[in-house]
Formats: sequence, structure tokens, C-alpha cells
Amino acid sequence: MLAQTESVFALANGHLGWRGVLDEGEPHGLPGSYLNGVYEVRPMPYGEWAYGRPESSQTVINVTNGKLIRLFVDDEPFDVRYGSLRSHERVLDFRTGTLSRQAEWVSPAGSAVRVHSQRLVSFSHRAIAAISYEVEPVDQAVRVTVQSELLANEQLPPADGDPRAAAILDHPLAGEYQVHDQNAVLLVHRTQHSGLRVGAAMDHVIDGPGTLRTDARVTDDAGMVTVATTLQPGQRLRLVKFVAYGWSSARSLEAIRDQVWAALSAARQSGWDNLVTEQRDYLADFWDRSDVEVDGDTEIQQAVRFSLFHVLQAGARGEDRPIPAKGLTGPGYDGHAFWDTEAFVLPVLIVTAPDAAASALRWRQHTLPIAMQRAADLGFAGAAFAWRTIAGEECSGYWPAGTAAFHVNADIASAVIRYVNATGDTDFERGPGMDILVQTARLWRSLGHHDGEGKFHIDGVTGPDEYSAVADDNVYTNLMAQRNLLAAAAASEQHPDRARELGVDPEEAAAWRDAAAAMSLPYDAALGVHCQAAGFTAHQLWDFAATPADHYPLMLHYPYFDLYRKQVVKQADLVLAMQHVGDAFTAEQKARNFDYYDALTVRDSSLSACTQAVMAAEVGELDLAFDYLGEAALIDLDDLEHNTRDGVHIASLAGTYVALVSGFAGVRYDAGGVRFAPRLPDGMARLAFTILLRGRRLRVEVKHRSARYLLVEGEPLQISHHGAAVKLTAGKPSVRPIPAIAPRPRARQPAGREPIRRRVGDGKLAGSTPAAAG
Amino acid sequence: MLAQTESVFALANGHLGWRGVLDEGEPHGLPGSYLNGVYEVRPMPYGEWAYGRPESSQTVINVTNGKLIRLFVDDEPFDVRYGSLRSHERVLDFRTGTLSRQAEWVSPAGSAVRVHSQRLVSFSHRAIAAISYEVEPVDQAVRVTVQSELLANEQLPPADGDPRAAAILDHPLAGEYQVHDQNAVLLVHRTQHSGLRVGAAMDHVIDGPGTLRTDARVTDDAGMVTVATTLQPGQRLRLVKFVAYGWSSARSLEAIRDQVWAALSAARQSGWDNLVTEQRDYLADFWDRSDVEVDGDTEIQQAVRFSLFHVLQAGARGEDRPIPAKGLTGPGYDGHAFWDTEAFVLPVLIVTAPDAAASALRWRQHTLPIAMQRAADLGFAGAAFAWRTIAGEECSGYWPAGTAAFHVNADIASAVIRYVNATGDTDFERGPGMDILVQTARLWRSLGHHDGEGKFHIDGVTGPDEYSAVADDNVYTNLMAQRNLLAAAAASEQHPDRARELGVDPEEAAAWRDAAAAMSLPYDAALGVHCQAAGFTAHQLWDFAATPADHYPLMLHYPYFDLYRKQVVKQADLVLAMQHVGDAFTAEQKARNFDYYDALTVRDSSLSACTQAVMAAEVGELDLAFDYLGEAALIDLDDLEHNTRDGVHIASLAGTYVALVSGFAGVRYDAGGVRFAPRLPDGMARLAFTILLRGRRLRVEVKHRSARYLLVEGEPLQISHHGAAVKLTAGKPSVRPIPAIAPRPRARQPAGREPIRRRVGDGKLAGSTPAAAG
Repeated sequence: MLAQTESVFALANGHLGWRGVLDEGEPHGLPGSYLNGVYEVRPMPYGEWAYGRPESSQTVINVTNGKLIRLFVDDEPFDVRYGSLRSHERVLDFRTGTLSRQAEWVSPAGSAVRVHSQRLVSFSHRAIAAISYEVEPVDQAVRVTVQSELLANEQLPPADGDPRAAAILDHPLAGEYQVHDQNAVLLVHRTQHSGLRVGAAMDHVIDGPGTLRTDARVTDDAGMVTVATTLQPGQRLRLVKFVAYGWSSARSLEAIRDQVWAALSAARQSGWDNLVTEQRDYLADFWDRSDVEVDGDTEIQQAVRFSLFHVLQAGARGEDRPIPAKGLTGPGYDGHAFWDTEAFVLPVLIVTAPDAAASALRWRQHTLPIAMQRAADLGFAGAAFAWRTIAGEECSGYWPAGTAAFHVNADIASAVIRYVNATGDTDFERGPGMDILVQTARLWRSLGHHDGEGKFHIDGVTGPDEYSAVADDNVYTNLMAQRNLLAAAAASEQHPDRARELGVDPEEAAAWRDAAAAMSLPYDAALGVHCQAAGFTAHQLWDFAATPADHYPLMLHYPYFDLYRKQVVKQADLVLAMQHVGDAFTAEQKARNFDYYDALTVRDSSLSACTQAVMAAEVGELDLAFDYLGEAALIDLDDLEHNTRDGVHIASLAGTYVALVSGFAGVRYDAGGVRFAPRLPDGMARLAFTILLRGRRLRVEVKHRSARYLLVEGEPLQISHHGAAVKLTAGKPSVRPIPAIAPRPRARQPAGREPIRRRVGDGKLAGSTPAAAG
Repeated sequence: MLAQTESVFALANGHLGWRGVLDEGEPHGLPGSYLNGVYEVRPMPYGEWAYGRPESSQTVINVTNGKLIRLFVDDEPFDVRYGSLRSHERVLDFRTGTLSRQAEWVSPAGSAVRVHSQRLVSFSHRAIAAISYEVEPVDQAVRVTVQSELLANEQLPPADGDPRAAAILDHPLAGEYQVHDQNAVLLVHRTQHSGLRVGAAMDHVIDGPGTLRTDARVTDDAGMVTVATTLQPGQRLRLVKFVAYGWSSARSLEAIRDQVWAALSAARQSGWDNLVTEQRDYLADFWDRSDVEVDGDTEIQQAVRFSLFHVLQAGARGEDRPIPAKGLTGPGYDGHAFWDTEAFVLPVLIVTAPDAAASALRWRQHTLPIAMQRAADLGFAGAAFAWRTIAGEECSGYWPAGTAAFHVNADIASAVIRYVNATGDTDFERGPGMDILVQTARLWRSLGHHDGEGKFHIDGVTGPDEYSAVADDNVYTNLMAQRNLLAAAAASEQHPDRARELGVDPEEAAAWRDAAAAMSLPYDAALGVHCQAAGFTAHQLWDFAATPADHYPLMLHYPYFDLYRKQVVKQADLVLAMQHVGDAFTAEQKARNFDYYDALTVRDSSLSACTQAVMAAEVGELDLAFDYLGEAALIDLDDLEHNTRDGVHIASLAGTYVALVSGFAGVRYDAGGVRFAPRLPDGMARLAFTILLRGRRLRVEVKHRSARYLLVEGEPLQISHHGAAVKLTAGKPSVRPIPAIAPRPRARQPAGREPIRRRVGDGKLAGSTPAAAG
């Protein structure tokens, strides 16, 4: 529970992340401070050797903790487990980007104090976090000592047996340099195997009655600034702590040291108030273009803002670094980035914070040399991006659910296409875009083959559903590869100079188009549904009735052997294909496929409910879609998977936005523009949001019977509303009626795996402003 | 090279194995003394956790070395790397079961000696090995010191990177007890993790001129008996060394100690000459019923005797222990037993040493509780025998080529069926036989499922070909499972009391028969061939032309990912199905299937050439069959796979017999009796052998134009010769002409993987008696 709140209340800016640990460090669930890209290498063992498997993995490490502010009240440490806690509240404010805390505490000896702290990880100063810490007596004079700390290699709780939890490394940092100067301390450390240098520094502005004496100390792994005073009732001690970080794999000790001092000086010169103002301004701008208003369900309203806030925190200032599955909120999945980023997170960032999306894609581009070497090692052309990684190297220790999941390459290409379509960023398309499109197209062409009848097959790969593996012609993979091949061919035609540079000749582009045109999509004519992969629908059905409720997630209770050979789906796969490549299916096929696969999908992955919400909405199951929306949206606030302790689920949170916007507003982008098919469930009264499209700003407001479209600014735009063309000009709203649909029977889910029913008017929390209380 | 000879010259009796290391221990390739069933446990690591994977493995260990006899000539150690070696010859005699050595050596100081040693691992005294060691001066008096040693934890060379080589464990034995008494020494040790107690003792009879002074010493890990004397020309020092071994997982230190002393005393009382006589008698009996005579190819003649000798050594006195893939000749494959035993080795032992075959199958029966637990852990009924193991627990660290290869269970059942058919051993059938048949049938029934049309499918399993994995309806697996299900149903009908005991009711037996009757066998009508597994023939063909010769075996140069998804076959799979379940295919199908799969089979496994030989002969490709026979037969004598150092390939050696008897004599057993379809290649003039069949002894002699059948003893017998019934009565030979066949084009193999052409009249070694020189 404590660890969950640390993830939920984590602050980050895409570069630096601080978990929401209490200022005084203890009690804690799982302490953590992270710098995007800072990892240690660990050997990856195997029972039996095989060619081409990665020999080592990368693991995110807990860097120097700058959050610590310990308080002593009349010599007794402020620790909420002792004494008496009269009140305690923490508020994560999505408008200000700060985590505030109010506590009133009586020490075991009877001294009462009020503590108010506020912290931020700055969006405007990417290397900076800051804390304002205030303490005052409640009724009688107290002697207080405040100890502000920088702590490297802090002791972590032992990792539990859950394979999804990170392998936490002990003592990852070797001290290289320490110094203190008045109220400032700087520490430089280095990782042992990955050879990364990490600098952290703090400085303080201290304000209180009378003359305040401060002390500073430093050791290899700790720096400490202490201030002690006696406060009378009405007096207050305030400490503003500025913390700066810097790291590099290449730069010298001196360069890192100076960089950190410089960032710290700049922050101190800005001062706390300016940092707070800049933070609020940054977010005001974000919310102005990104907020989603949901009337009728305050819980969902809060959740979607919580989600957008964490998605922004994961990517805002990454600057050509990955967006890990947990953002910078915890060590889950070893801090690795997966396909989640491109398939779930970037679609949201592209229309809310496009620069952050471009930056995440540029990170992929930077790893192209590694990906091309990996493809060559595996015997293929082009680039094979890592299934899971921090620095680009493949870190998957189980190839059937790692390397074989080649769809990650098409997911990356798809994000490139989506970004270029949404922004019209031609420079990006010509540069990183073409690099990625061409090398992934080459991969697909060499992975697949034409059969005697000319059909193109991609055999032996793993699709999104991790309860199937190493199968032929996975429909999701094939459709995404088809798009990838066509996009590479089109881009090569459009940018012939870049194509020449990349060695693409007309023959190669033609081979891509041929493969795309001949792509196999296995279909079971008897059942009238697509096969997730060839042969899938002929497999035995998983015996859901005989599966005890406590045997989920299935992967913890059944061998992959048995999961792979039966019809049981961990997460949307064919259904995701229908969302991402919707025009490959007729409406009737979508409905039949949805019903068939929903009955097999156990949602043992957090990358499922949001997709099921979108497709449930599309096929007209609005209440079911609403239930799935709830599951995606509340995954971390309600800790639905019992692992929020390891970090929030960025992709599922992004899915909250997608479920609302692509689901209930029915938004679909394609090369031609944007289509809408809005339709609200009973549980929602109104849905309103803004989207960015090639410099335009489009305001959309959906109610039960009509939708209102307003082009706020920009060139006239043609959209589609439930299939009908609507022309929009700036400033002139267009209101369109929503056609009625016939009710259909609710799709069945595996026994015991039905989503929690979301009652109409549900909502545990009041208020509809962007703030979470906890 | 040295290590290869150590494997080739290894002596064993199925219980105890000594590699053919020089008496003086050095130079050596890979020292090794093994006790069947003595192993250490090592943890089995994974990059990522998954349910149901074994957490530890078992590894054969090098037990106390009793072979060592060091010689000092005028204080200089006898070491063939120094001084001058005038002559050196070692002879492994298949008739006497001894390894002899003659050497004449001049020390660096100029003293010349002749050494003659002879060693045996006794077939009659299963715990005993013995050495006769003689030394004499050549031309002038020499002072000789002979040091006979027992050595535990001897230093081993570091293991190389080949995954197929054993993980050699350092210092596996902890000393528990040591004692010496006159010329005898006894050491008891214990393994650290597996908790096995191993005792080894030696005693000596020393004979030489004058009074001989002996010394004995003992430490934790070594015992030593030393004798020193001066020999005049014409004088000789002879030392007979008796070595006894004993081990147990349960028995006390005292019990082991006494057991080893007792075995040693018995051997000493027998004396060297009696041990030699008993050894020769044991082998005379074996050769009398098992020898295969091959005229026209002396190399094959020698090789088949070498093969039979090693097959006997692997199984003779195992007594309810496994027969490992390398026998007791080396640490390869960690000393594990695989399906090789039941599919390749037992078919030979069943007709040459049926008691050894029964013993190996009883070992499987003893592991049934472990196999039933394993099946339950995996979620299946019945028993899932280990893919690789020493003590019964699954030791495979890579499930797609381990646990998923469920065919091992049908291979075991098939060996039971074959043993009972050949011997008529009803007690075995009622007992261990039914236990195995019923539990494996239960496994198959729960592994497979009926589809909507009633067809029975076994999905997601791995067949014999390890370059494919986790596929649906592998034909080999399905046909073998079909046999298994039918045999279990038939046995339950025949032994209703045992069936009741095992809980088999008529419904269950009916379900087995239904599944067997409805078994799917995928067939590609367009190509007119069976699919190795569903979808196999639709996969891309491996690009053999682009595969460099030094990229074989492919598994060391290409990822499993790419091997699995393409048409490339490591080892006979569909072709093995045609051998083992021949009546499931028409002659025309066999020919077409053979041609199709031979063109895809790279023989990166030693478990292939013998099967290809059998089926090449059956489809009428006698010269090709002859070439494959050569490959199977010479695998160790010519070190064709460059890994004979780790032990000989027992299954491939057994395949030499099978290639001759099932191949060129066309022997097929079925429930009704035995069929012959003999036909010799040009390279052989005559093939003669004896087979045992339900107490009868049948002598067969095949020439190019006719075959002669003689029932040596027993009840009249009807056999089939090229489809025609032949009635045999004891003592009356029947000679039958061999029908001519039309020539057919030679099957193609993958480019560069054609077997070496065996020229007519080939043969590097002269002599046709059962002995190998090296």
C-alpha cells in the first residue's frame, strides 16, 4: 500500500524521476530515484546455451536519493510509525505539478509540530528537483533539527519472487568524488559494469527565526546539511532544497561535476517561487491542449487526468531517451522500454505533446546501429529493434516472448507514420522517419517469404498475445508489417534523395509493395472469424471453468507449453489489429471477431482493457466498453494488478485516454485526415477534448444525442462524423446528431474474468478538477 | 585425438565405466571414471522466470579414479611425452572384453623398459575393475617404482564452449572416510548437494624378483600403494590391481565401506585369471547370439562389432539404472539419458541382451512417481517422463526442445511393446509394462483433444527434429502416441486385474481407442507428402546454397527462431515415423516422403543417419543406404562429429546394427511376428546374423541373390520374406530368392550435406575378427 502510493505520487519529467517516498525516507515501500538511461549491466544466465541469445541485461538502478529531509523534534526523529499522527494528507496537483504534504504530529515525548512540504521535479529545468520544507510548533516551543541528505546506494528491501519485479542490484554506485561548500554538497559516482558517471548535488535556502547554525558533512555515499533551532509557537523553519542531477557515459568527472553545479546554480537563482510558476505554466499549456472532460463519472474524470499527467511525466523531457514501461516511477520490468511505448503511449503524446513523441522516436533512431547489428546476427536484413532494453541492446532472456515478437519493429514504424500524419513534420519524416521505415521494411521483407501461389507469409513469430508464441502469420503482425512496407515504399518515392542515400532502389520498393499486397491473413471460414495466427482457431479451448480464480495470471500457474497450444489470450492481439488497422476488416468481421476473442481474453496483461474498450465501443457495446475503460483507468489508483508498487503502468494509463478518445469519440486517424464515430455509454453525460492535427486545434464535445466540432484555429478541415463528411472552418462549430444503434447481446468473457461492472453515476471521489488526493 | 581414443577404448559394464586413459594418467584428454547414477546437482539459471521449469540439473561426476598406475624408471616418471617411445600399441578386444597395451620406452636417461598392461571392467563382478600391469627392462638393469593410486577429485581440463559438452564440476566429492591395510586402500566420499555416498577400494597382488617392499599412504582424496625394486634383464615386476566401487543414496558409511571391501575380497579370491575367463565367457555368449557378419567391407565389419560391444557395455549390468546417451564412456550431455535409449538402443538390446533392455525399462518404471508428479505440475494426467535426466527429474533447461518433446513417453511405451513382442515376457508386461503403458496413454489422452469433426490433435509439441519445435500434429508423435494408446487399451483388456488396480475402466480404454482411431496425420495433397507437422511444408525452404560449410551444425550459427520457421530438418523425424510405424504409410508414400525429407535433412544430430539408412534401403536406394550406414557406423571410430572426446554415441552405434538388420535385411517386428525384405548394396557380399524371438533363435544369411533362414531352435515359426510367407521348422534352412528392383534416381540431400560415398570394397582396416586396434 505504501509502495503503491509511492508510485502513484511519483514525480518525473522524463529525465529524472522521484518516487513519492515520504520526505524523511521511512517508513517506505520501495525507495527510488531514477535517471532515464542510467542502468547497470547484469549477466543473463541460461540452462542451455543457444546461438544469438543476449548474454547480459540492463537494469535500472536507484541513483543518489536527493529527496531525504529528516526532522528531529526535541531529539526524537519524526517518524509516522511512532508518536501520534493527528493528521496527514498528501496531494498530487496535476495543475501545479507538485506533491504537497500536510502533517500534524505529536512526538512520543509530547511535542506537537506541523510539517508542510511541497516538491516538484521541474519540467522547465530538466536536471532539477526541489523541495520546500516547513516545520512549526503547534502549541509549545520545540527544538527542531532538520537534516537534508544526498544518499547513494541506499538500502533497498529485498526483491520478491514476482518475475515482473525488477532484479534490484545491491550497491550499484562506486564513489568517485565528494565535496561540500557551505550548505551545498556534491557527489559523483560511477556504475561498475555499465561505466556510467552520475553526479548529484544539493543546495539550500534556509529561513527561520534568529541566527541559524548549519553543518555540512560528506562521505563516499552521503552528503548532509543540518540546521538546528528552537521554534516558539508562531515561528517557522523553512528549508528550500534544490537538487541537481547529471550523468554521462562519456563525459569526464570534471565535466559532470561542473554540469551539476551549473544546473544547481541556475535553479537557485530562479528560486523556489519561479520554479513553481514555471511548472504551473508548463502544465497550463499542456492541459489547455490535452485535458479530457468527462461528465457523469468523477472517478473516470480524475483517472484520465491522473493518466495524462503520468504519461506527460514519462515523456516530457526524455530528450532522445526511451519511455520505460513504468516511466520513471519504479524499477518494474528492470526499467525497460517495450513496444508499449510506440503502440500505446506515443499515440497519446503525438496529439498532446508531439515533441515528446518525436524525441522518443529519435531515441529508437539512435539505436539503429545496434538494431541493424542484431538483425545481422539473427540472419536478417534491416534492423531488429530490441524487445526490451534501456540502451538499445536486446535484454530479453526468453526469445519466444522476446526476439520472436518482431511486431515491435512495425509498432515503431507505425508510430513514425502516425506522428508524421498528425504533425506534418516533414523534416522528421525525411530524417529519423525514413531511417526507421526503410530498415524495418527491410527486416519484414527478409523475415517473410512468398509461397508457391505468391502469398506472403511471416512464419514463426510471436504477436502481442504472450499466451501464444512462435506461430505463422499472426494477423496483427502481418497487418502492421504490411503498413510498414507500404509506408517505406511511399516515403522512398516521396524523398528519392534520401532513398538513394539509404540504398533503396525501385526494385526494392517494388518488392516491399509486392509483399504487402500479397500478405496472408488467415481466416476461419467455418467460424467466420480471423485466426489470431494460422491454426489458432483449431486449437483446444482453454478450460476456463476449471481454472480457479487464484490461478490468474495464468503464467504464474501454468507452463507456457500449455498456454501456447490452447485458445486463451493474455491480451488483445487480433482485437488490437482491428483497432490499429481497422480498414482491413469489415464492420461485420469486427463484430464477430470481437465476440470470439473477447470470450478468450483473460487480460493477464495491462495492455488489454483499453484496446477492448475501443473495439467494444466500435462494435456498439458501450456498457462493456465503459467497464473496460474503468479497468484501464483505475489500474494504478486501485492497484488492480497488485504490482503498482513497482511503478505505474504508463501504457494502460495512456490507454485511458485512448479508450475515451478512440473508443467513445471513435477517433481514427488515417493519411487522409481524422474520422469520428462518437457514442457515449449511459455512465457518461459528456465527453470533451481537444486534439492537435497538423497545427490545427480541434475541440470536440460529445453528448448522448449529438457531437459538436469546433476548429479553434487553423486552415479549414474536413472530418468524418459517423461516415458523413463534415467541413470545418475556424471558429464555426458544427453540431451533428449521433445515429442510434440497435442493442446487441453483451459479449461473453472467460468465466470469472468479466470486467467489474461500472455502475451508472459511479464515482468514489468528488470534484472534477485535475488533482488527486491520497 | 587422445580424448577420442579414451572414449573409444573405454571399458564399462553398465554400472561402472573407465575411460581409456593411459595407466599412468598423463598425458590425458579427459580423465573419467563413472558410476551409473552418481551425479551432482547444479542450479539451472534462466534469464526470465517461468512456471514449471526445472530449477536444477543433474550432472554426472568423475568418481574416484582407480585406473592410475604410475611408473618410475630410475626415478624418472614414465611419460610418453618425454624420453623416446620405441613402440606403443593398444588393443580393445571385443571377444575378451579387455584393453591391452604394449609399450617400449627409453627414459630420458637412457633406461629402456617394456610395459604390458591389460585392464577389464568385469561383466561378471559388476562392482569390479582390474588391471594387470607388468614392467621389464629391455637390455640393462633398471630400478623401477610402481605407484598404484586411488584418486578422488582429480583435476580436470576446463570445459570448452560447446553446449553439448558436460558442465564439469570442480571437486564434487567430500572425503568421509579413508583407511589402508597392507596393500589395500579404501576411500569413502560424499557428494555435496545430491548427498550420494561413493566408496572405492583397491587391493594388489604383486609379483617380482626377491623381496618386494610396499608402502601404503592415504589422504582425504588419495590412496597410494608403492612398490620399488631393481629388475635385471629377464626379470619382471607384475602388479595385479583389483578395484571395487559401491555407492548409495541411502546406505550408511559403514554399509558402503563393508560392501566395497566385500566386493574387493570376492574379486581377489577369484583372481585375475578367473576374472579374464569369466569376461571371455560372458562375451562368447553375447557374440554367439548377437554377432553380425559383414563380408565385403572390413571397416563396416569392425564397426558393427565395435558398436555392439559398446551397446553391451552401456547396458549389460545397469540393473535398473538408465543408459545414458554416452553410456559410461564420457561426461557428454551431463551424463543424461534421453529418448535415444528407448528409440535407438533398446531395439538392439531387446534382440541381443533382452535382460539389459528389461532393466533399462524398469528404471523408467522406478521413475514413474517423479514422472506422474511432473505431469501433474504441468497440468496433465498420467506420467510425463523426463526429457533428460539421471535420477528421473526433468533436467532440460530449454523447454521447447525438452519438456515439449513429449514423444519420449511414446518412445518408452514403444520399447515396452517391442520388448514384450520380442520376448513374450508376460510378467514384465503385467508389471512394469502396464504401469508404463497406462500412465503414458493417460498423458496422451490429456495432451490431445478432439476437434469439432472428431479428429484427434496433439498441439504444440516438439518431434524428434530439433530444428522444429512446438508445432501441431507432429506425425511421428501422433503415430507413436496412437500406438501407445492402442497398446494400453489392449493390455488393459488382456490383464483386467491389473487394469482395475490402475483404475482403468472400460470408458477410459474406449477413450484411448477413440483418440487413436481419430488421430490426425497432416498430409500435403499438393506435394503428395506427409507434413512433418501441420503447416511444415508451407514454410520457407532453408537456403542451403547460401549456408557455408563451416556453419554446420546450424544450431551453433543460427538462432532457433530462424531454424524453427523454415523447412530444415536436423534429424530424421517423419522418416523415423516411417521406420517405427511403417504400416501407416504406403510404399509409394514412403518413397515420396523419403525423397522430400532427405533433401531437407542436414544430419546435425547423430540420431539420423541410421534411420535414413533403414528407409533408404526400404525405398530401394541401397547405395545411399550404404553411405548412411557408414556414417552411423564410423561416427566414433572416425570422430565424424568431432565430439567423441565427450564419450561415444551409443544410439548411433546401436543404429549401425539397426541399419544392417532393419535396413539391408529389412527386418520389421510386429505383433504377428517378423518380416524380412533383404537386399544388399553392391558394397556388401554377405550379411549374416542371429535374432532372438520369443525364445527362438533365427539365423539369417543374406547374399545378393538369395537369403537363407534357419530356425536354430524352438517351435516352428512363420516369417515373411519380401511379402511371401515362409514356414520355418528347427534345423531346416530355407533359401529364398531376392526379387530384383527397378533402379530409381538417388535422393538429393542439402547442398554440401551429402553423406560420404562409400566405395565398393572400401575398408581401411584388415581382419574381420571382433577387435579394434588403435
